[in-house]
Amino acid sequence: MTQQTNSSSDSDFARIIVSYRIDPSIGVKPEIIAEAIRTEQTIEFPFDLAPTWIQNNVVGRIENIDGQVVTIGYPIGVTGGGLGQFLNVLWGNVSLLNGVRIIDLQLPAEFLADFRGPRFGVAGLRSIFNAPTRPLLCTALKPMGLSPEELGATAVTLARAGFDMIKDDHGLSSQPWAPWAQRVKTIARMVTEVDADSPHHCVYMPALNVPADQLLDAAHQAKEWGAGALLVLPGLAGMDSMRVLADDPELNLPIMSHPSFLGSTVVNPQQGIDHGIVFGTLMRLAGADISIFPNYGGRFSFSQEECETVAQACAASLGEIATIFPSPGGGMTLDRVPEMIKVYGTDVTLLIGGALHRGDLFSNARQLVEAVAPL
Amino acid sequence: MTQQTNSSSDSDFARIIVSYRIDPSIGVKPEIIAEAIRTEQTIEFPFDLAPTWIQNNVVGRIENIDGQVVTIGYPIGVTGGGLGQFLNVLWGNVSLLNGVRIIDLQLPAEFLADFRGPRFGVAGLRSIFNAPTRPLLCTALKPMGLSPEELGATAVTLARAGFDMIKDDHGLSSQPWAPWAQRVKTIARMVTEVDADSPHHCVYMPALNVPADQLLDAAHQAKEWGAGALLVLPGLAGMDSMRVLADDPELNLPIMSHPSFLGSTVVNPQQGIDHGIVFGTLMRLAGADISIFPNYGGRFSFSQEECETVAQACAASLGEIATIFPSPGGGMTLDRVPEMIKVYGTDVTLLIGGALHRGDLFSNARQLVEAVAPL
Repeated sequence: MTQQTNSSSDSDFARIIVSYRIDPSIGVKPEIIAEAIRTEQTIEFPFDLAPTWIQNNVVGRIENIDGQVVTIGYPIGVTGGGLGQFLNVLWGNVSLLNGVRIIDLQLPAEFLADFRGPRFGVAGLRSIFNAPTRPLLCTALKPMGLSPEELGATAVTLARAGFDMIKDDHGLSSQPWAPWAQRVKTIARMVTEVDADSPHHCVYMPALNVPADQLLDAAHQAKEWGAGALLVLPGLAGMDSMRVLADDPELNLPIMSHPSFLGSTVVNPQQGIDHGIVFGTLMRLAGADISIFPNYGGRFSFSQEECETVAQACAASLGEIATIFPSPGGGMTLDRVPEMIKVYGTDVTLLIGGALHRGDLFSNARQLVEAVAPL
Repeated sequence: MTQQTNSSSDSDFARIIVSYRIDPSIGVKPEIIAEAIRTEQTIEFPFDLAPTWIQNNVVGRIENIDGQVVTIGYPIGVTGGGLGQFLNVLWGNVSLLNGVRIIDLQLPAEFLADFRGPRFGVAGLRSIFNAPTRPLLCTALKPMGLSPEELGATAVTLARAGFDMIKDDHGLSSQPWAPWAQRVKTIARMVTEVDADSPHHCVYMPALNVPADQLLDAAHQAKEWGAGALLVLPGLAGMDSMRVLADDPELNLPIMSHPSFLGSTVVNPQQGIDHGIVFGTLMRLAGADISIFPNYGGRFSFSQEECETVAQACAASLGEIATIFPSPGGGMTLDRVPEMIKVYGTDVTLLIGGALHRGDLFSNARQLVEAVAPL
């Protein structure tokens, strides 16, 4: 993807700037770690044995060392080959080091120009759902174990209540109780029927938790059956597989990313990648229109501050790449909505699942729809 | 993939048994965490609201709580849909919790029967390289920045010296200095020519660090050009994408897995998944014939004990799934070979890269070949 002419100067091309915070407890000086990282993520070869032009034009450059924070600039040519190789430069082998965490990432325009990013983003989704300012509403079909018809009946109730998006629980794959094709076809038909009779637009979003060689076909098949958006698990399918779905002009459906399997990359404060970079910047590069992450105070361990960095990264300037909706979920309840609007603002997709089922599903759902309608 | 009849009894089907160690410092009782995990990884729904048959047949069952270790048994039907959903049950949402680490995994025969695993494994590779007992030898083409012809010339030297496998450095994708097709075609041709004139069989193993929608075609194209094995990055491409390559009967090439981007899942002692499960068990399920991981005492942070658990998991009984070669790499040097054989035994693929280039490449390589030949 990235193209760049071979050059013998070290200053005339754009660089990807990555800042790593080094945990002092590992007992190695930041200067030493910086030298290790800049070669590890590029040539994986003794620096002194590399030809001079490779030392200058391929190996990462130490841009700055400030206390425990080291900043490396990688020539964008190193990331040639697409999103996978970019992620490999960012975090491939360094992921195997303890005590190193990426806390900042700056991507030059020349690099970003190779990425379409989300096809819809905030503006596109607001247009689809005729919702110029309010939060969008999404819920998940559950519990696993129900038949396609039972899940479909739940979807119909939620569609009638006025939800924008009704997604499969991300664990719905192709279990014996609701095989993939049967489930997606049934629910898509049922939601499409409600949608045709309703003033409010609602879409069914099947989970593309399917074998890798079936991913693209499953997405197209789901669209043909009436699905209006797609739920993707990039931590399992691969970030670049999500990018392929977003880039597909024939598919042309909004994509919601689920954080399954990605947790270890963010939850250790001394290692990994900052929450905002993973669930904001990287998800945008990989084409998600909505990025799910676990809300603070729910079933998981993210702090309010960490969640806010995700929302900030979803909305930050990133070349021509559209802004996207953060979607804090995981144990959300109706009574937390005002607080969440206060924290996230209205450019948010509220994701509420199990809690809607305690009491009457329709009236709980309706209450939420009415709460966000005036926003 | 997994099929199972719906049943109202909770004891007549096989279960996947996962043991999680809970970090006491998170301050939540193991009993509470066990209850959370068994629903989180299955129905993601309030347990008391689920129908009784789902409580009994879909939700994970607490098999045991022993101090800080909780063991959950998941009905195999829950993993229906393939490797991705299995990984999602194992570690999907739990990955977002701090202080939880998978330390043991038991897979029943009924589950394993759905996986082919590695196509070659230890026995298959020993046959290919006519190496009944000795360690196999692999090296990486580097540094990034060289042209296809320069990389090819290095490959020729290593092939003549008697290496079994010559792989691309995993960061070689499609950089401007050596675009993917040009590089793979050139090196494959050069190695094939040496191989034709040599009594010792040597294969070129290109890195499939390519866009997701080009992965399968790239593998077939590489084979057509003469590649004899494939390097896959499952942490970026997705574990199930590697499984697709391994399962492809037309492709029929050995696969080596690279740990890029997977580090955070193992390096934090209080969170993640044990080294042996990730780089042994999961890589075998996903079809790798050789699993690379960072050797102790090299550039990374794995302990000797952690490395030994990887080797043990590569060799352990796993239904009908073949045993595979562990491949400790990352900063290996010639003088460590005797020690490594002592630790890993001879069912190992020694991976040595940059160190061969200090001094004369051919004689360094030859020295290694001669050191392992009598083993």
